[in-house]
Amino acid sequence: MAREKVTVIGLGQMGSALAAAFLDAGHPTTVWNRTPGKADALVERGAVRAETVAVAVAASELVVVCVLDYPAVRDLLAPVVAALPGRAVVNLTTGSPEQAREEAAWAAGHGFAYLDGAVMTTPPGIGDSANMILYSGAPEVLAAHRDALAVLGDPVDLGADAGLASLYDAGLLGLMWSVFGGWLHATALVGADGVSAKEFTEVANRWLRTVSWFMTGYADQIDTGVYPGDDATIDVQVAAIGHLLHAGEDRGIDPRLPRLHLELMKGAVAAGHGGDSYARLIETFRGR
Amino acid sequence: MAREKVTVIGLGQMGSALAAAFLDAGHPTTVWNRTPGKADALVERGAVRAETVAVAVAASELVVVCVLDYPAVRDLLAPVVAALPGRAVVNLTTGSPEQAREEAAWAAGHGFAYLDGAVMTTPPGIGDSANMILYSGAPEVLAAHRDALAVLGDPVDLGADAGLASLYDAGLLGLMWSVFGGWLHATALVGADGVSAKEFTEVANRWLRTVSWFMTGYADQIDTGVYPGDDATIDVQVAAIGHLLHAGEDRGIDPRLPRLHLELMKGAVAAGHGGDSYARLIETFRGR
Repeated sequence: MAREKVTVIGLGQMGSALAAAFLDAGHPTTVWNRTPGKADALVERGAVRAETVAVAVAASELVVVCVLDYPAVRDLLAPVVAALPGRAVVNLTTGSPEQAREEAAWAAGHGFAYLDGAVMTTPPGIGDSANMILYSGAPEVLAAHRDALAVLGDPVDLGADAGLASLYDAGLLGLMWSVFGGWLHATALVGADGVSAKEFTEVANRWLRTVSWFMTGYADQIDTGVYPGDDATIDVQVAAIGHLLHAGEDRGIDPRLPRLHLELMKGAVAAGHGGDSYARLIETFRGR
Repeated sequence: MAREKVTVIGLGQMGSALAAAFLDAGHPTTVWNRTPGKADALVERGAVRAETVAVAVAASELVVVCVLDYPAVRDLLAPVVAALPGRAVVNLTTGSPEQAREEAAWAAGHGFAYLDGAVMTTPPGIGDSANMILYSGAPEVLAAHRDALAVLGDPVDLGADAGLASLYDAGLLGLMWSVFGGWLHATALVGADGVSAKEFTEVANRWLRTVSWFMTGYADQIDTGVYPGDDATIDVQVAAIGHLLHAGEDRGIDPRLPRLHLELMKGAVAAGHGGDSYARLIETFRGR
């Protein structure tokens, strides 16, 4: 079966990786970049260089945009907006949920299909179906172009609210920084007693699967608003974190991260929730 | 093949779960608890109630101890220490690395085998081989009693330094609180726009697998002390966290956790490491 034609606008590190993945999968690929030289390597691999955005947009029904920010997207698309009806714009540029919603409203006003997306990997991870690409916005775009988009990574459909891909992106990156922080703190701790990062990380990665399993149970608690402390209460965690703070202090490890966790836990205890599960801290994070 | 005899001393929530798992697997199980009534349910399932610690210790070569703290372990074992040579004491009580090392030294001085352990799950997770039980100390204990100990959870051998199970335990719990914090913050964030915890957590759990993959690569960087920012630099993360802080502010979400991550990142940038990978923050956590 012939692979559908695709256009990629914006050839930074990520845009170039997207175009390369389309080429590798056999999609006739048209590319455009403000600095045309960035297309050279892709053209050598078979991409067609468009001299203008208008030519790039005319070349394919599916137009993927990945540039610096949302104002740059608008600057590029506004002059060619009359050519967009009948096409699908997939915007993988990083921005805020509000920007994505504005862009979707602008697209609706101009009669073209708009799907917002967030790439949940670094450029070397593009093309690996283990990695997710989050989409939200016009549902028909994903239905019509799923085969092409699946070339980039596993497409995850978040529904019709165009802002959700960006909102999930922000939240998931926050989760990543938290994981990195907890892992680096622990790696420094065990490293002080001679354990290599590689040895510890193998165990930490297994442990993350157990933590995932806790999260799945806690998510149900959050959705129902009932937080039974059957397995482990916040009070138990307050006692346990003392070992971590003490072991870190003995080894000169930076205490800021565990101290903040203790502060958050103590806030919940002060609010009378010490006998509840850790999931009760959602109320602290909600800021209410 | 006959299952070996085991003794469990201490029948709190965790100790009771350990004894129950041994019974379920067909091990003749002797139990002791300071308050004898806690043994009743286990005795109904086939456990033998020991009237004294001396009787409990005499009943099995493998003696598992899970009580309140290390001083309680010593109080129980000191009076029967003359009966311990030839037996293996597996101590699953929670404590510090230093306490575990002291206990190992005390055991060595009295000629019995001592293995320290940390149970990496809550009591309902006992008996599931997906969960880890970390062991460190006398290597011959795990070799001789692996089949019995594997009944409780997957045994992970951390080597001869008895302190490591407790040290890993503290570090892994710190990782857990960090994961919970990042996840709860993100769940509150997307929840403000109508996403359920269950929906978000399915994506978050997939994302943790990608984050694990980053950690594996970063662990190599930490062990070699070289932090190339090929895929994503700390500077890039500083820019990206702005979206999270802004989205959180718009929704009234507690900002303490992402603010701390930004503070940590900015410290690395100020030290001249903005072009390095996130793994470079290990130096911040090391407190040097």
